[in-house]
Amino acid sequence: MPKGKTFIICGPSGVGKGTVVSRLMEADPTLYFSVSATTRAPRAGEADGVHYHFLTRERFQEWIDAGDFLEHAQFVGNFYGTPRRYVDEAMDQGRDVLLDIEIQGAEQIHQKRPEAVRIYIAPPSWEELERRLTGRGTEDGEKIRSRLARGREEFAAARDFDYLVINDTVEHAAAEIRAIMTAEHCRPAERAAQIEC
Amino acid sequence: MPKGKTFIICGPSGVGKGTVVSRLMEADPTLYFSVSATTRAPRAGEADGVHYHFLTRERFQEWIDAGDFLEHAQFVGNFYGTPRRYVDEAMDQGRDVLLDIEIQGAEQIHQKRPEAVRIYIAPPSWEELERRLTGRGTEDGEKIRSRLARGREEFAAARDFDYLVINDTVEHAAAEIRAIMTAEHCRPAERAAQIEC
Repeated sequence: MPKGKTFIICGPSGVGKGTVVSRLMEADPTLYFSVSATTRAPRAGEADGVHYHFLTRERFQEWIDAGDFLEHAQFVGNFYGTPRRYVDEAMDQGRDVLLDIEIQGAEQIHQKRPEAVRIYIAPPSWEELERRLTGRGTEDGEKIRSRLARGREEFAAARDFDYLVINDTVEHAAAEIRAIMTAEHCRPAERAAQIEC
Repeated sequence: MPKGKTFIICGPSGVGKGTVVSRLMEADPTLYFSVSATTRAPRAGEADGVHYHFLTRERFQEWIDAGDFLEHAQFVGNFYGTPRRYVDEAMDQGRDVLLDIEIQGAEQIHQKRPEAVRIYIAPPSWEELERRLTGRGTEDGEKIRSRLARGREEFAAARDFDYLVINDTVEHAAAEIRAIMTAEHCRPAERAAQIEC
């Protein structure tokens, strides 16, 4: 059985990564969606191992020291990271892995595992992204402007990604990502071993 | 409108390239299948511009001198080549181009146009390829053995290709090539220009 592959999904806040990932998981339940570890306290309704792996600061540091994170970072006083173990277990079972992470995390993983495929999800236009962020109605104008500015900044880095998918509709974006996953399994290094000699 | 891309299809004799290409053309009539030029005489039923562009030797040499071939080669005393002009016209119209060529031709195009995507179609096994070649019933044992030996030799070069598709069933192989074509249109260099800034 061929090993699974890791697909890193990045994109600006508000672009709809979560919805696209959900659509992919619905279409292929064998996909493994990586659950992050964090030191922040669980919120109401959040379950350990489902929404996050909740770790103490000491435990998180032990994992860092042991090289047990594919990437990790600190945001607003809390640590967040991608545990290596679950990703590797899923790939060993032949399952493809989806990681929904920040662009800095994608960079860390790319250094360690250049074979991980990096996909950036972009909005059809920056105006449309602004409409989507405003439409949420959860943030004030200043926060939205700051998110937009950061999205545009990050977009320069997206040009180094393997693929750029435009989320005009969820169906279209998910179909393109599925095509990318199929194509990446057709790389000769992997495929050549599947031909009986 | 984004420009079309060139997809080079190679594979050993008997693997079923023609059938896979026909299936792709049926599914997407906008695809342009490149018609080769040749100096050999038309056979019964062959039409100029449909099966081949039939050229005199003098004309063929003029095209070579003018750089009008993406690749060309001599087989059994006749010249064969891929005219650049029709490929470029199709791509300018936004059409993807399929080239069914020999592996040496693929190498020539790769030198000139590294952005052309190289797909190698392989059999599920060499035994299966032998069965397919024998099943045709058109060639004797020695010719089949020679084709098989050449196929195995070429296969080493296929590891440098961008993609390796196994033709277990025509549907499966065609679906994988369609996925590859979709994925290759998601490359950032092309896509970034499609986002309205």
